[in-house]
Amino acid sequence: MTANPAWVKNLDTPYLLIDEAKLQRNIDRLRERISALGCQLRPHLKTLRTLEAAAYLLPDKNAPATVSTLAEAEAYAQAGYTDLLYAVGMAPAKLPRVAAIRQHGVNLHILLDTPEQATAVVDYASKTQQSFSVFIEIDSDDHRGGIKPDAPELTAIAAQLGSHFSGLMTHAGGSYGCSTPEALKDFAKQECDAVRRARERLLQAGIECRISSVGSTPTAHFGEDFSDISEVRAGVYTTFDLVMKNIGVCNIEDLAMSVVTSVIGYNKEKNWLLTDSGWMALSRDRGTAGQAQDYGYGQVCSIEGEVLDGLCVNSTSQEHGVIELSGNHSISDFPVGTTLRILPNHACATAAMHNVYHIVMADGSHSQWQRIQGW
Amino acid sequence: MTANPAWVKNLDTPYLLIDEAKLQRNIDRLRERISALGCQLRPHLKTLRTLEAAAYLLPDKNAPATVSTLAEAEAYAQAGYTDLLYAVGMAPAKLPRVAAIRQHGVNLHILLDTPEQATAVVDYASKTQQSFSVFIEIDSDDHRGGIKPDAPELTAIAAQLGSHFSGLMTHAGGSYGCSTPEALKDFAKQECDAVRRARERLLQAGIECRISSVGSTPTAHFGEDFSDISEVRAGVYTTFDLVMKNIGVCNIEDLAMSVVTSVIGYNKEKNWLLTDSGWMALSRDRGTAGQAQDYGYGQVCSIEGEVLDGLCVNSTSQEHGVIELSGNHSISDFPVGTTLRILPNHACATAAMHNVYHIVMADGSHSQWQRIQGW
Repeated sequence: MTANPAWVKNLDTPYLLIDEAKLQRNIDRLRERISALGCQLRPHLKTLRTLEAAAYLLPDKNAPATVSTLAEAEAYAQAGYTDLLYAVGMAPAKLPRVAAIRQHGVNLHILLDTPEQATAVVDYASKTQQSFSVFIEIDSDDHRGGIKPDAPELTAIAAQLGSHFSGLMTHAGGSYGCSTPEALKDFAKQECDAVRRARERLLQAGIECRISSVGSTPTAHFGEDFSDISEVRAGVYTTFDLVMKNIGVCNIEDLAMSVVTSVIGYNKEKNWLLTDSGWMALSRDRGTAGQAQDYGYGQVCSIEGEVLDGLCVNSTSQEHGVIELSGNHSISDFPVGTTLRILPNHACATAAMHNVYHIVMADGSHSQWQRIQGW
Repeated sequence: MTANPAWVKNLDTPYLLIDEAKLQRNIDRLRERISALGCQLRPHLKTLRTLEAAAYLLPDKNAPATVSTLAEAEAYAQAGYTDLLYAVGMAPAKLPRVAAIRQHGVNLHILLDTPEQATAVVDYASKTQQSFSVFIEIDSDDHRGGIKPDAPELTAIAAQLGSHFSGLMTHAGGSYGCSTPEALKDFAKQECDAVRRARERLLQAGIECRISSVGSTPTAHFGEDFSDISEVRAGVYTTFDLVMKNIGVCNIEDLAMSVVTSVIGYNKEKNWLLTDSGWMALSRDRGTAGQAQDYGYGQVCSIEGEVLDGLCVNSTSQEHGVIELSGNHSISDFPVGTTLRILPNHACATAAMHNVYHIVMADGSHSQWQRIQGW
């Protein structure tokens, strides 16, 4: 392991640190995998929500990408990206913002799964002489939104949308419940099969389906056959996190994000360290709580990134973290002022707590990235 | 109930809404209570972190206040506030920022509970010819930081600090585990008694203790005797939340904060509504999970604020909420595009997800408040 540059230890804590070399490695790994399988990535930009990270993820500005808010769509459109999928069901009241982005030459695709939304789109399009690009959400795993591939509404909604209809989209968020390669492979197949079946029904009904979009970080890393699938989406793979480590998508060494914290006190009787990273810096996410290994509010590492086995942030309040020492670790090993790194349960949630990220570049230099805010 | 002004329904969702009239009522209630008990409030500004909210909380700019980060201290100092307690244990590396604020004529008090921190303060003070104002944290309930009132270190640390020593501070965060008025009264007494005992020991050792500071929202609302206590701190009482409702500090009608969301879909088989408020808008906080009434990720209300009994946000992902309908509620009552309000489990955590708050003023007009960011 290369030693940290001095600035890593000297910034005021808590702060979010991203390791550029690991980020690049994670991005390359999935891009090469999906490309080798003859498919295309549509990276989800929601984890980091920065223009700088987008530059790593998108080989050129016309490459497809996914966003989780119109605020992101507006920022990326402004920066010159031209093919964006807003992957949250469309609230009719937001159509004017979508139209405004599309009028600037950006192919912003929207998502829906009800006849009511389709009516709203068609009515707004006709009233304003707009064209939209609409994906219908397919429910491949019963976990959130979408309609079943065999639902009668499918062909009706697509027909209703007419020329505004572009494709089908599913997100196998249920794959987060898997923990073996076999289960993940099966889940990836189930995700693709759901879209294939829906597409087949549309073709039978004489409706063209130009794009078939699948994906989640686990299924993107374990899918083996993307035939008849146009594109694969994934987001959190850029930095990975402890949830993904537990699922088996990455190793703990692949985690490119950590929160740097300082020891601000201790409780000798209880063998506790107190730090200045509470849930405000780490997030309230307890995604590993139901998994094989529960990391509390995050895995504790030395400031150099060495994992300190058995040490987690066990509890948090707004600006305090409590680390219950165990094993060979004693309070005297961590004097007040010691800096540590905390690996996050869920990178999307932890990044959301920070407006600015600090990047240790592959050459040791320091960059700062500004997060796109709001909705 | 007065009908909402039209703008409340027409802003893009999700957004954070604060009811000025309720905010003012909550603030007045505690101010009057503490004043009637002959004590002074040092409000904690960490829930809303805005200059506008501070103006409601602080009768004048020399009134005492509490902050959770130096970023807040810097912003409030800049705005003219002069008496601020940074209520998180001092990391020695942050002393230069504290000194810079103090040099602008602001009495920024700091907190510590170890001899190592006291040494760092004294050394830095002597090296730079600064004076500091230091509170020693007392552990009154075994829940986080501080030293016990009878700990031998207490007098040693105070003596070590010398002229930099100002007072004692405790936070009975453990009071969040109470749920009856009797338990809360006892907890408030325990909190005060811990500081009184520590102060008595200092006096016996010939050390003057100018300020005795106690407080948490529950104990501030149930304490009956603040004799020998200089000031009471509380934060979340400004807007309250479902955790405080469950503890019994407020009624659900007192909650001054909600997240406004739109219905973006449904699942007929499961009787689910999908909304555009995921954990990014609501936070991951599940503070009511261990309480008598578990509100999931928040209580669902109509856009007018009427509580819809039995309806919670049952699960969330980044930008999606799922409401499992029950009782008399059916999907057809909530067409796509319907706006709803969600009451938060934990107002501090929910506010932290928003850079901007929208305020419905008592006269129905619309204000926007900007949150102070970062550390």
